[in-house]
Amino acid sequence: MLKTNQNYKLLNTSYLFPEIKRKVALFSSEFPNITLFNLGEGDTTQPLASSVSKSMIKKIEDLGLATLKSQIASNYNNSYAKNFDLSEIFISDGAKTDLFNIQAIFQSGMKVALQNPSYPAYIDSFVINGNANDLVYLVGNAENKFVPSLPTQRVDLMYLCFPNNPTGASASYVQLKQFVDYALKKRTLIIYDSVYSWFIEDPRYPRSIYEIPGADECAIEIQSLSKIASFPSLRLGWTIIPQKLLAGSFKRREINNIWKRRQQTAFNGASIVSQAGAISALSDKGLKECDKNIKYYLKNTKLIKNCCEKIGLECFGGTNSPYVWCKTPNKMTSWEFFDFLLKEANTICAPGVGFGSLGEGFFRLSGFAKNKEVLNATQHITKAFLLLK
Amino acid sequence: MLKTNQNYKLLNTSYLFPEIKRKVALFSSEFPNITLFNLGEGDTTQPLASSVSKSMIKKIEDLGLATLKSQIASNYNNSYAKNFDLSEIFISDGAKTDLFNIQAIFQSGMKVALQNPSYPAYIDSFVINGNANDLVYLVGNAENKFVPSLPTQRVDLMYLCFPNNPTGASASYVQLKQFVDYALKKRTLIIYDSVYSWFIEDPRYPRSIYEIPGADECAIEIQSLSKIASFPSLRLGWTIIPQKLLAGSFKRREINNIWKRRQQTAFNGASIVSQAGAISALSDKGLKECDKNIKYYLKNTKLIKNCCEKIGLECFGGTNSPYVWCKTPNKMTSWEFFDFLLKEANTICAPGVGFGSLGEGFFRLSGFAKNKEVLNATQHITKAFLLLK
Repeated sequence: MLKTNQNYKLLNTSYLFPEIKRKVALFSSEFPNITLFNLGEGDTTQPLASSVSKSMIKKIEDLGLATLKSQIASNYNNSYAKNFDLSEIFISDGAKTDLFNIQAIFQSGMKVALQNPSYPAYIDSFVINGNANDLVYLVGNAENKFVPSLPTQRVDLMYLCFPNNPTGASASYVQLKQFVDYALKKRTLIIYDSVYSWFIEDPRYPRSIYEIPGADECAIEIQSLSKIASFPSLRLGWTIIPQKLLAGSFKRREINNIWKRRQQTAFNGASIVSQAGAISALSDKGLKECDKNIKYYLKNTKLIKNCCEKIGLECFGGTNSPYVWCKTPNKMTSWEFFDFLLKEANTICAPGVGFGSLGEGFFRLSGFAKNKEVLNATQHITKAFLLLK
Repeated sequence: MLKTNQNYKLLNTSYLFPEIKRKVALFSSEFPNITLFNLGEGDTTQPLASSVSKSMIKKIEDLGLATLKSQIASNYNNSYAKNFDLSEIFISDGAKTDLFNIQAIFQSGMKVALQNPSYPAYIDSFVINGNANDLVYLVGNAENKFVPSLPTQRVDLMYLCFPNNPTGASASYVQLKQFVDYALKKRTLIIYDSVYSWFIEDPRYPRSIYEIPGADECAIEIQSLSKIASFPSLRLGWTIIPQKLLAGSFKRREINNIWKRRQQTAFNGASIVSQAGAISALSDKGLKECDKNIKYYLKNTKLIKNCCEKIGLECFGGTNSPYVWCKTPNKMTSWEFFDFLLKEANTICAPGVGFGSLGEGFFRLSGFAKNKEVLNATQHITKAFLLLK
C-alpha cells in the first residue's frame, strides 16, 4: 500500500526560514515603502572571487529560480494544453537523484512494478528503499517489442521509461493510455522517466505522459537535460508533481506537499549556472540548436542499426531513441558477446543482462559516440561477424 | 545501535557500468595499443549548443573529477598531516544534501545526539529518517558559551557543528578532543559539519575535526564552499568518509563502501561547472581571494557585535564566525523580539527558538549582508533600543 513515510508527519509544519519569509512578506505588504535590513539569513552576498568567476559564467546574478520554472511550465502548458503552475515543478540536479529519492517519501514495503529489462538504477533504488521484496516485472520481449502489458495485479508504484533505456522501445499514445487508465482505476502512482523523450520524431509517440488525459492525476514525470543539451555533467533536471495527483489514499496536493517538505530539508537547489544554461536550452533558439545534437545522435543510431541488421541481427529500438537493442548471435550470453565484441571489434557494448534477467542474450549499442567513431566501429563490427559464419 | 540500512545488503555487488569499466580496463592493460570504440555508454558527446554554452563557462571539457578530489585531499593532507586518498573524498552538491542522506545508510531508530540550539535542518533530517524518537540534546547555554558537555549516555550518532550555526560558538582543540575521545571509546559516529570553519582566525580553534588524533576513526566531515567562495547557488561541497572509520560494529572500509554504493545509485555528481570553480577556489590564489570575502563578512560581524554589546545585550559568537547570538532584552521571546526588530529597526533577525527549544529568548544576526546595509541596520537597531529604556 502506498503510504507516506510516517516520519514526515512528525515534522513541524513549517521550516524556520519559510516562516521568517512569511512574516517579512506580511510586514512588507503592510509597509511597502520600508526598506528592510536582512541580518537574518546565512546566505553570503559577496561576489565570487575573481579567479573563481573567471572559470564561471558571467551573468549568473539576479537569475531567479522562477524564471526556469516558468519556462518549463509554459513549455508543458503550450505543448500539452496543461495548466501546471510553478508549485508543481521541482528543479533537480538530474533525473537519477529524484528517481531514487521520491520513493523515500513513502513507507517501504510497497508493491512496485518495473520493466524488465530496464535502467539498472531503478532496481537498486527499490532495494535500498526497501521496496524490492515483492517486485512485479513488466515483461519486455521480442513479441511485444519491449512495450510490456499491464500488470495482472494491483501495484502501488509503477516505474515506466519511454523511449526505453536500454531497449529503445517507445510507447504509442494508445499503449501509454492503457497504463494511465490502469493507474487511474487502481490508484497506482506512475513514476514516468521521460529523459529520452527528446529523441522522439514520430508524432504517434507521446513526449510526455501528460499528453494522456488524466495523467496529471496519477503520474509524476521526471525529466533531465542530460541528453538533449549535452548536460550530463551540468546536472539539471526537473520533476513534475501535479497538485491534482491522487494515488493510494492520498488526497490532492498531499504528495506535492510532502515532496516540497522533503526538498526543503534535504536539497538546496540545482547550480544556478546550470539553471542559466537550462533557461537558454529551453528557449526557442536553444531548443532548435539542441535539436541538431539530437539529429546527430539519431543519425549515428541509424548507422548502427543498419549495420546490425545487415549482419543479420534481430534489432529493436534505433528510431525515436539513441539506443539499438539486439539479440546476440549464436545464442551467446550477453557477457560472452561483450567479450567477443571487445576482442574482435574493439567495440564496447552494454551487455543486456546488466539491465535485468530478461536482458540476457541481448546487448545495447548507443548512438552517443562521435560520428567518425561510429563509422569506424560499424566497419569493425561487420568484419568481426565474418568470424562467426 | 548503529546498523546499516539492511536493504544495502540486498544489492548486487557491482553496478553494471563499473563492471564494464573493469573489464575494459583489463582488456586495455593487456592490449594497450588498441583504440576502443565505446558504443556502450549512454553519455552524450556533442558539445553544448552555442546559445547554452554562451551562458556557460568556456573550459569545462576534459576536467576530471579526480582533479578536484586531489586538490581537496592535498589540502587536508598538507594542513593536517593526514593521508587521505581519493576514495575517501566524495564531491557533493553541498553540505545540506549529505547531512540528510548520510543517515539513510543506517537503520532508523538510532540514538542520535545533537546540539540544542542547532541548524534546524538537522532535526528535520532526524525526524524524516526515523531517528528522532530518542534524541539526546547537547545543551548549549550562556554558562558553557554554547559548547556543550559530552552526552552522559552512549549515542550511536552525534552531529556537531563548529563554528556553530546559530550561536557562533567555536570548540577549542581541547574541547573537540573530548568529543573525539568519547566517540572513540563509545564507538559513536560523529558527523562533523565544518561549513563555517573558513571563518576561524584564531589558531586555538581547529578548522577540521581531523586535526584531532583519532578523528579519522570516528568522524565524517561535511564541508561546503557556500560560505568561503560565495558558492551558495553553485552547489559544491564534499564529504570525507575515512577508510579507517570504525563506529558501532562496523569494520574499516565498510561505511565508505556503503556510501559509495549509495551515491552510485542516487547521485550523478556535482555540476562540472561548479567543480571547475571549486578547483580555482581551492588553489592558493583562489583561497587568498576568498579570504577577502571572509574578512569582509567578519568585519560586518564585528560591527554587529559591537553594536549589540553597546546597547547592553548579552552576546555570544561574532569572532571566528559570521554569526552573533544575543539574548533578547526585557525577557522577550524570540518571536516577540523578531517582531520588535522588524517594526522598530526594519531589520530581519533569525529568532533563536527556530534553532531549538534552548534558543528561546535568543536571536541570531549574521554578517553576510553588504557592509553599507550592516552600518545602516546597526544605526536603526541602536535607535530602536532607545524605545526599550
